Amino acid sequence: MDFVKGHGTENDFVVLPDPAGELELTPSRVRALCDRRRGLGADGVLRVVPGSAVPDAPAGTDPAEWFMDYRNADGTVAEMCGNGLRLFARYLLESGRVDAAEFRVGTRSGPRTVQVHDDGWVTVGMGPVQRARASMATVEGVGFPGLAVDVGNPHLACVTEVPVEQLDLTVPPGHDPTVFPHGVNVEFVNVVSGGVLRIRVHERGVGETRSCGTGTVAAVAAVLHAAGRSTGESDVEVPGGRVHVAISEESSALSGPAVMVARGELDPDWWARA
Amino acid sequence: MDFVKGHGTENDFVVLPDPAGELELTPSRVRALCDRRRGLGADGVLRVVPGSAVPDAPAGTDPAEWFMDYRNADGTVAEMCGNGLRLFARYLLESGRVDAAEFRVGTRSGPRTVQVHDDGWVTVGMGPVQRARASMATVEGVGFPGLAVDVGNPHLACVTEVPVEQLDLTVPPGHDPTVFPHGVNVEFVNVVSGGVLRIRVHERGVGETRSCGTGTVAAVAAVLHAAGRSTGESDVEVPGGRVHVAISEESSALSGPAVMVARGELDPDWWARA
Repeated sequence: MDFVKGHGTENDFVVLPDPAGELELTPSRVRALCDRRRGLGADGVLRVVPGSAVPDAPAGTDPAEWFMDYRNADGTVAEMCGNGLRLFARYLLESGRVDAAEFRVGTRSGPRTVQVHDDGWVTVGMGPVQRARASMATVEGVGFPGLAVDVGNPHLACVTEVPVEQLDLTVPPGHDPTVFPHGVNVEFVNVVSGGVLRIRVHERGVGETRSCGTGTVAAVAAVLHAAGRSTGESDVEVPGGRVHVAISEESSALSGPAVMVARGELDPDWWARA
Repeated sequence: MDFVKGHGTENDFVVLPDPAGELELTPSRVRALCDRRRGLGADGVLRVVPGSAVPDAPAGTDPAEWFMDYRNADGTVAEMCGNGLRLFARYLLESGRVDAAEFRVGTRSGPRTVQVHDDGWVTVGMGPVQRARASMATVEGVGFPGLAVDVGNPHLACVTEVPVEQLDLTVPPGHDPTVFPHGVNVEFVNVVSGGVLRIRVHERGVGETRSCGTGTVAAVAAVLHAAGRSTGESDVEVPGGRVHVAISEESSALSGPAVMVARGELDPDWWARA
């Protein structure tokens, strides 16, 4: 079984090419691959399959296009991951599975357009941004006013002058359950020199993360909103690196690095027992 | 640059073959390889070189034998690692770099004899065990009587009826600095059914670990000592798996699993920047 290991702003993945769509990727195998001591170690697995080989692919999936079958480290199926999609797209181009630098990739959130640049950066279409209403996060009893933003999943982006480095995010920030009945991803956002944003993100059900693609889009949307604008772009520093976000009336795009670390094959005995 | 990833009782390593002894393995490269998000991720790196290529090899190193150039994840040089040596030995046999199942490997603690078994287990000579004197560890204010044991490095092995699962090892256990002026590795040892030992280990300067080869030898020595014996053998359960320790008057041997996970090559661009 061949693999590629890589990361996007320190959100790391094992890519498993399965062009015939015949690999049985059980939750047990995903957990073994992602185990950081007994396996290769990763935040998730990206199986590379044709859209035709995914029974639960959403409407609009092109059976002839490559599909990103994304699994979390705990073995569960996940819909989309902007950081993973950058690595996935770079893998497709460098392995010769696509022959143009701009193409579509199927995901469980629907097809996404990607563009692989010469310097290894990749731009990913992130879909429309919906700003809902003001709300509030709390950290250690202190309230942080923020904006509820939907980027396919729910966010609460709080622009603040408190340096984000000083916040204790080991405990989930408080939020209003009447606004976010299914929980929320919370961003704390500083505007630093040159209009660059510096953010930290607490992902629901996960904790603080090195990087969150949709969270960077929500942060830019909140800063634009505070300035009375609905479109614009910005560099965003996350703990795992720097990305660039552009928001238009109809859509949004996230550009960032995709780093290939290694490629090889899994030990057959290990894989048979995984 | 080729690599192998594997582990011994969940102590995990990147093996780097360097048969010509020409690789410049800088601390920066070691840290990049061991980084669990930006790199492959491991507790350490095992460079495979001929003894002749190691300027600081100890007296007794055979220039024609393979030498385990072991580096900690922080880039520093380390002397020996029983878990790493098992993986190193299995790699040498499976890659055809040695042609018999029993052979010698050079280490910074001197040459060690290893034996690779058909089932993937490996036996490693751990050298003589020196029992010194009684001493005491403390956890949360409670004293645990133990035995000071030297297995090339200092240990304090405390046989106890308190279930080791219940101990809080997030804080280093207290020890007598007049007995251990340079710190000490501390083992807590239960004798469970069938004479199997179950242990937890706090490594000096590291914290609690999934596995510690010399610590398992110290634990068996302490249990034998309590029974008025100086030789014997036992299975030992560590958090990362199970090993077997045999102690004779002159020496000791540690047997345990060595698991190959994957093999491949580092991305050239990534390696050039590491």
